[in-house]
Amino acid sequence: MTVTPAFMYLKGLAQSSQSLGDRSVTSAQGFRAGALAAGIKASGKPDLGIWASDVECVAAATFTPNKFPAAPVVLSRARLAAADGHAQAVVFNAGNANACNGQQGLSDAQETSRLAAEKLGISPDLVLVASTGIIGVPMPMDRVRQGIPRLELRPDAGHDAAQAIMTTDTRPKESAIAIEIGGKEVRIGAMTKGVGMIHPNMATMLAFIGTDADLDKTFARATLKRAVDLTFNMITIDGDTSTNDSCFLLANGLSGAPKLDASSADAERFTEALEAVCTDLARQMAADGEGASKLLEVNVTGAATEADARSAARAVVGSSLVKAALHGEDPNWGRVLAAIGNSAAKVDALRAALWIGSVQVARDGVGTGASKDDARAQMHGSVVQMRVDLGLGKAEARAWGCDLTEAYVVENSAYST
Amino acid sequence: MTVTPAFMYLKGLAQSSQSLGDRSVTSAQGFRAGALAAGIKASGKPDLGIWASDVECVAAATFTPNKFPAAPVVLSRARLAAADGHAQAVVFNAGNANACNGQQGLSDAQETSRLAAEKLGISPDLVLVASTGIIGVPMPMDRVRQGIPRLELRPDAGHDAAQAIMTTDTRPKESAIAIEIGGKEVRIGAMTKGVGMIHPNMATMLAFIGTDADLDKTFARATLKRAVDLTFNMITIDGDTSTNDSCFLLANGLSGAPKLDASSADAERFTEALEAVCTDLARQMAADGEGASKLLEVNVTGAATEADARSAARAVVGSSLVKAALHGEDPNWGRVLAAIGNSAAKVDALRAALWIGSVQVARDGVGTGASKDDARAQMHGSVVQMRVDLGLGKAEARAWGCDLTEAYVVENSAYST
Repeated sequence: MTVTPAFMYLKGLAQSSQSLGDRSVTSAQGFRAGALAAGIKASGKPDLGIWASDVECVAAATFTPNKFPAAPVVLSRARLAAADGHAQAVVFNAGNANACNGQQGLSDAQETSRLAAEKLGISPDLVLVASTGIIGVPMPMDRVRQGIPRLELRPDAGHDAAQAIMTTDTRPKESAIAIEIGGKEVRIGAMTKGVGMIHPNMATMLAFIGTDADLDKTFARATLKRAVDLTFNMITIDGDTSTNDSCFLLANGLSGAPKLDASSADAERFTEALEAVCTDLARQMAADGEGASKLLEVNVTGAATEADARSAARAVVGSSLVKAALHGEDPNWGRVLAAIGNSAAKVDALRAALWIGSVQVARDGVGTGASKDDARAQMHGSVVQMRVDLGLGKAEARAWGCDLTEAYVVENSAYST
Repeated sequence: MTVTPAFMYLKGLAQSSQSLGDRSVTSAQGFRAGALAAGIKASGKPDLGIWASDVECVAAATFTPNKFPAAPVVLSRARLAAADGHAQAVVFNAGNANACNGQQGLSDAQETSRLAAEKLGISPDLVLVASTGIIGVPMPMDRVRQGIPRLELRPDAGHDAAQAIMTTDTRPKESAIAIEIGGKEVRIGAMTKGVGMIHPNMATMLAFIGTDADLDKTFARATLKRAVDLTFNMITIDGDTSTNDSCFLLANGLSGAPKLDASSADAERFTEALEAVCTDLARQMAADGEGASKLLEVNVTGAATEADARSAARAVVGSSLVKAALHGEDPNWGRVLAAIGNSAAKVDALRAALWIGSVQVARDGVGTGASKDDARAQMHGSVVQMRVDLGLGKAEARAWGCDLTEAYVVENSAYST
């Protein structure tokens, strides 16, 4: 599936974005990565790595709300709090989530971070940890101990890192953008993995975002939270997240651009760029949902509140019946309205309107009588768009999902074996 | 799949239950049904019917909370309120949900009830309506008008009615029970249809329960609500229900048994019998989820509150990843805990214990090291049981679901076409 580059999502983009060329988690200045196959994945593919800045960073993160958080989440959250929002590196692995492993899991995550800190010659207090893979199986620490010292970190190894965090992903997910702030080029480079079936009851999403902007700590947290809410959180539903979901933002300031806080003239500009990168990655993840063959983009307009718009949009992309109909290119629009009717959104049954692509299939809550063939034709491509106008207000939201296919079931019937 | 009869779910059951023989929605005295193929279903199978009592009944019902309720739901709710909890018949159809049809839908539902009332020689005020099928397509009223006068209502036609409400159901779902109250035999006979994928974003559940008990109006409402909460609502998740979900209880008092209200000595006994019938039907529905090959019964114990227990149990049966693992007979217990971690239930990650069948796979939130083969062996049959003890209190709940199979996807990819 062709994915539109991040810069397409930025309004009034400076031409400099085009200069990025190789888009990865090391696109910003002063970031390096290294990855290798340590033998954690049964497949023998790359599964262990470190992503690091040359200097200490202002750091922000969002973590899973799951009440069984994995050891790396517990550790990283504590580290960020202890270091007052500073960090310099993330050590990561795929193949084992180090979740539901009790006290041993926590010790293993701590040892992993110590090994990475030794490798980098920095304090373990500045090293965060991210894991993804099977739950309830102890980390194969012998492989971690052998692997970390062998890592080679290079500025051009971002793609290797993106490969090493993959689990059921069929392709790596990377994005980058450049904007000008105070006469300096500021870059954001990022990678993600995930997510199974898009509305992941459990499939892990990991996101790593590195920028050479100089960010105020409070602003970094706020802008990351907003970007995640508008993008990554709109490919999930009902707050369902895995035991391991983590999104890290490291800002090292090496661009030399002036420091940004919420009151800076360029703050909005940076926020838009961050959202563009995250939108790009969210779409890539939705398009690569397990077994997915189609990306679904749902726009809800006319909602009474933003919360309503978000709830309605996520209900549509999260509905198994909508997803199955999408797979069959079946313009069964009643399923879309019914999914919204089950959401927390305020609706008026006699006001909702619905478009599949450019074909309006419902108006005032009733079918328009549009030709089914016309509507179906809007579902043929690899990207399908739906718009629902609730007719109640001015709030909007966008969510992304994918179709539900036989391949999803096959894939998830025997994942741990 | 073999289904245990309703009487197996009743503690201290009177032997008289065995005498029921033919269990159906007309098992109680004074109930009749009729059904035929009116041409609403494309398949040409039976799709229209009436279920009626010989005399006016005390009536209670629960309806979908979906904010786009179908016309029959709007009408039936209004009728029950207007008739102060009395009704005598339900006219029903499959093949068309009469949902998202605006004012025309409501007129059609009203006309349908009038036609049924004429057929029965009673007031339309006592006739409720239930529909299931495709959304957003006008009711083919010509077929309804031709069909209703041709219906023949008989006490032995309960099975015909159960056939006529089926949509993607592979088999009819019926149950009945008999208990003794005040020296008289009191019977409850019931039928249901549904539900796609068990946690139905939309697939409709219709339930019809007829008893010859003499019920106080307030008690009828309370006991139905409790039974539905413990059974039918435990095969759904997050309150997601279709535009058409309806559950009707008609009590005609023809058993001659003394009237029951909440303070009656036998009230508890009737409630247990009603729950037994609903449990039986809930299990039948779960076992017949679209494409399902396995019934999953989840018991949550040790919860802090009943709400927590219910939330946790429903989260497990509603998790797509658990359902897919069940299909693959994969004892991937981390998915079970993670699903609970996403629920509203209070949990302590270091206290949860989990059993698959009789094999304990987790203790104190960590794997027990039980053999995967042993755990897998517990998943071979057509009924798989899991128990989760949260270790926090004494509240319990039970929920039912099924596996997620390729067949589900195939079935739902092209339902409306």
